[in-house]
Amino acid sequence: MTARVLVNGLAEDHVSALDRGLAYGDGLFETIRAINGTAPLWARHMARLCDGCGRLGLPPPDAGMLSRESARVVDGIPDAVVKITLTRGCGERGYAPTESIGVTRIVAAFPAPLWPADWYRDGIRVRCCALRLAAQPRLAGVKHLNRLEQVLARGEWSNADVVEGLLFDQAANLVSATAANVFVGIDDVLLTPPVDICGVAGVLRGALLEALPDTHVRTMTKEELMRADEIFLTSSVRGVLPVRALDGRVLRAGGHARAAQAHWRAFGFPGGES
Amino acid sequence: MTARVLVNGLAEDHVSALDRGLAYGDGLFETIRAINGTAPLWARHMARLCDGCGRLGLPPPDAGMLSRESARVVDGIPDAVVKITLTRGCGERGYAPTESIGVTRIVAAFPAPLWPADWYRDGIRVRCCALRLAAQPRLAGVKHLNRLEQVLARGEWSNADVVEGLLFDQAANLVSATAANVFVGIDDVLLTPPVDICGVAGVLRGALLEALPDTHVRTMTKEELMRADEIFLTSSVRGVLPVRALDGRVLRAGGHARAAQAHWRAFGFPGGES
Repeated sequence: MTARVLVNGLAEDHVSALDRGLAYGDGLFETIRAINGTAPLWARHMARLCDGCGRLGLPPPDAGMLSRESARVVDGIPDAVVKITLTRGCGERGYAPTESIGVTRIVAAFPAPLWPADWYRDGIRVRCCALRLAAQPRLAGVKHLNRLEQVLARGEWSNADVVEGLLFDQAANLVSATAANVFVGIDDVLLTPPVDICGVAGVLRGALLEALPDTHVRTMTKEELMRADEIFLTSSVRGVLPVRALDGRVLRAGGHARAAQAHWRAFGFPGGES
Repeated sequence: MTARVLVNGLAEDHVSALDRGLAYGDGLFETIRAINGTAPLWARHMARLCDGCGRLGLPPPDAGMLSRESARVVDGIPDAVVKITLTRGCGERGYAPTESIGVTRIVAAFPAPLWPADWYRDGIRVRCCALRLAAQPRLAGVKHLNRLEQVLARGEWSNADVVEGLLFDQAANLVSATAANVFVGIDDVLLTPPVDICGVAGVLRGALLEALPDTHVRTMTKEELMRADEIFLTSSVRGVLPVRALDGRVLRAGGHARAAQAHWRAFGFPGGES
């Protein structure tokens, strides 16, 4: 893994073994695509990070400093994924979120993987995961560091042909993929599940809800999903991925996915050409 | 904070900023009380850690190595809390729990705080937390690193007179305290909630269920809790803590709590004398 890392602004690649981010997952992260040093969705990532800090009781992030540090780590990487992690830092042992010695700030950059062109053109294979997401309104929507559910769900398959897994809540309603949001076209209506009980409020999901204002945010059962005319996944890192197969069911990229891909390119990202 | 730390057996106090324990809370921990170098509940802690590794798909822990490293860090600390953390280590970016470069192993020792004698004699004040624990059977019982619920719940109060907070699930059934299990005496029957939907399978809880075999494991509503004759909390670090006040309600240490404290001392721990 080639990564450039800054920890609290210093070119270090380690954090204290007693950091609360490690001890309790007590923190937040963002993964941000940057093309030639520019991150088209930067402002939305900062807005979500700021909201997450408020939800966890962390001080608001210094977006200017994060921007400067991101510029340092992406320098020379034409297509980069920037990962920003903020934790409550070190403090006394125990859960109490008392005065810490200060937030730990990690800014890292990785070269973006070369995702296959046919993923965007023809779509990807996805599966339904067995793990059901827990309902926790206090953490829903937030991109926090408690991600064991996603790790366990992603561990359900190792077949490299299957790119993503769909996750449902305890009531068997669709929520998201393991690392992407999901949009579903049924009877010419575009739907995406709410993220107020579980799931993450994806940055690209938010941008597309504004760009495609006829989209309905509502719960969907697994049965409804199986009647979908089209399904696509959205991630601010990977963009818009149509689904060409869901378990045994064959689908094809539809008009909604193509419209979402056009918006992705309009934001300033490459790829996803139909 | 005075701590002695070994990371993968080396006298270091830091881990990679890209460790999955930090990125996703992808790991486990144990906090173990050691008196003059001896941890009376060691075997139970190792059994839970081994079970947790199985649940998360980590390789089983090397209990002999952990024992030797624990002995190194507690040397010279007459009353110590040993914290063992295992993570899936570093690996490729993304949730997939693929081959990592190896588990990260952190063994740290802290001097045990001097808890007030009256906590054990007269009891502690506790409150009911507003945060409701999410139901996740796949993680229930496991002492994993996803502890944001506990951090948020512990952040609900700052009054130092209140020592613990009781947590309920989404159906308003009692689960535990933020960092302890809970036992409730109602009509001369001793009850403790199950930990198969949420909560942690406490080591002292397990030992007491064997020592006090008439204890019933069953769900309890908040209404039942409010009719309790006695309540006590159990932690393998802090021991058996009777509750003397629950929000506005006054209680006193009863026979069940005294019996549990006697078992605590019989395990080889000091304190908790009635």
